[in-house]
Amino acid sequence: LFVFYSTDIDTDKGSLQEEDLHHCVHVLRYKEGDLITVTNGNGLIVSAKISKITKSILYFEVLSFISELPDPIQNAIALSPPKSSDRLEWFVEKATEIGIKQIILFESSRTERSRINVARLQKIAISAMKQSKQSYLPTIVHYEKIATLFQQCTDFQTKLIAFCEMRQSYIQKHIAAGNHIVMIGPEGDFTNEEVDMAKSHGFSPVSLGKTILRTETAGLFAATLLENYKNL
Amino acid sequence: LFVFYSTDIDTDKGSLQEEDLHHCVHVLRYKEGDLITVTNGNGLIVSAKISKITKSILYFEVLSFISELPDPIQNAIALSPPKSSDRLEWFVEKATEIGIKQIILFESSRTERSRINVARLQKIAISAMKQSKQSYLPTIVHYEKIATLFQQCTDFQTKLIAFCEMRQSYIQKHIAAGNHIVMIGPEGDFTNEEVDMAKSHGFSPVSLGKTILRTETAGLFAATLLENYKNL
Repeated sequence: LFVFYSTDIDTDKGSLQEEDLHHCVHVLRYKEGDLITVTNGNGLIVSAKISKITKSILYFEVLSFISELPDPIQNAIALSPPKSSDRLEWFVEKATEIGIKQIILFESSRTERSRINVARLQKIAISAMKQSKQSYLPTIVHYEKIATLFQQCTDFQTKLIAFCEMRQSYIQKHIAAGNHIVMIGPEGDFTNEEVDMAKSHGFSPVSLGKTILRTETAGLFAATLLENYKNL
Repeated sequence: LFVFYSTDIDTDKGSLQEEDLHHCVHVLRYKEGDLITVTNGNGLIVSAKISKITKSILYFEVLSFISELPDPIQNAIALSPPKSSDRLEWFVEKATEIGIKQIILFESSRTERSRINVARLQKIAISAMKQSKQSYLPTIVHYEKIATLFQQCTDFQTKLIAFCEMRQSYIQKHIAAGNHIVMIGPEGDFTNEEVDMAKSHGFSPVSLGKTILRTETAGLFAATLLENYKNL
């Protein structure tokens, strides 16, 4: 079963375009009348029948809803991007697979500058979503200033900031019902000023355990614990 | 702080060889009399003074023990290796960082054959251990037959096998005190016969949640939950 992705799904019809159109028609060689499965990236998955294929668009009729509810818990990981784009892309793939709904990239004072290509990361997330047969596509945003992150994250019930010096307060003890955001710092960690600023915006400093993890490993460690909680 | 790795550490002296010698002397330009930190990969970390450098060996005196106890909990992940060596190497790096003590690679009936270079994986683990300033180096073994795995894993208190069809029995509920092993299958999952064979060897089938994870993601998801339990 292959799941296509489209932002155009109505109650009775919809369309595939661009890469999904290409993959469906030219790679998998689906034809008019064939059945496909399509998700909107936000919990909706439909079974559909291809009604018409043109050069630039594929139209389908919706036959039935396989699932239609957005996930009630929307967790976010805010990550100071590692310098290596491979490591960042790896994080986006894995966080998407395990079900994180929002990936926020931000620059902190010790972040090593690198070019962030959000469009490319979004493509990786779409591919990971399809690969893992999920119906959730995380939103990916990039804030150049850490202050912007604080302004934008008022909707989370639980706000945590991972800080290596915070030995006593283990992350698992802070995970509860509701939406979480966890901030993960750069190699070299957050500065004390950044942690203080986070605290003043309602973030609790937490530890990720005894070992020192790379940024992207720390991000996935936190993501796993957040999504794990939903399965309990 | 850089941590060197050596299997030759005695109570009062030891040596660095090969890559660690090269890195210490030629990259970091340490000299006789300088202080270094060395781990044996099994919980021992010493502070030491370089006493003599020759072309093929660096001798040091042990000044003090920073930590000397092996981790009382030794968790293992048994993974049917993904075809992509990048994905396998990624798994080894991340599992080492978060503290898994044994990585077992095994071929199941749906494993896509690929060449497994254990020596190369061991190097990646050493590098990840140093990078994350840990003192544990996982052992890495490769079994061509799944039956060998069953024969060799009698020492674990909790034995789990991840199986996508096992919807009810979520992994977290099975994690307890003691040493765990979790078996992760290939793309396409274990066969029913393999799961039955595992059950007859004391393994409980468990679910990793609602989403379908790639092999290496599933391995790290399980590894995170096992190591998380130790921090509670």
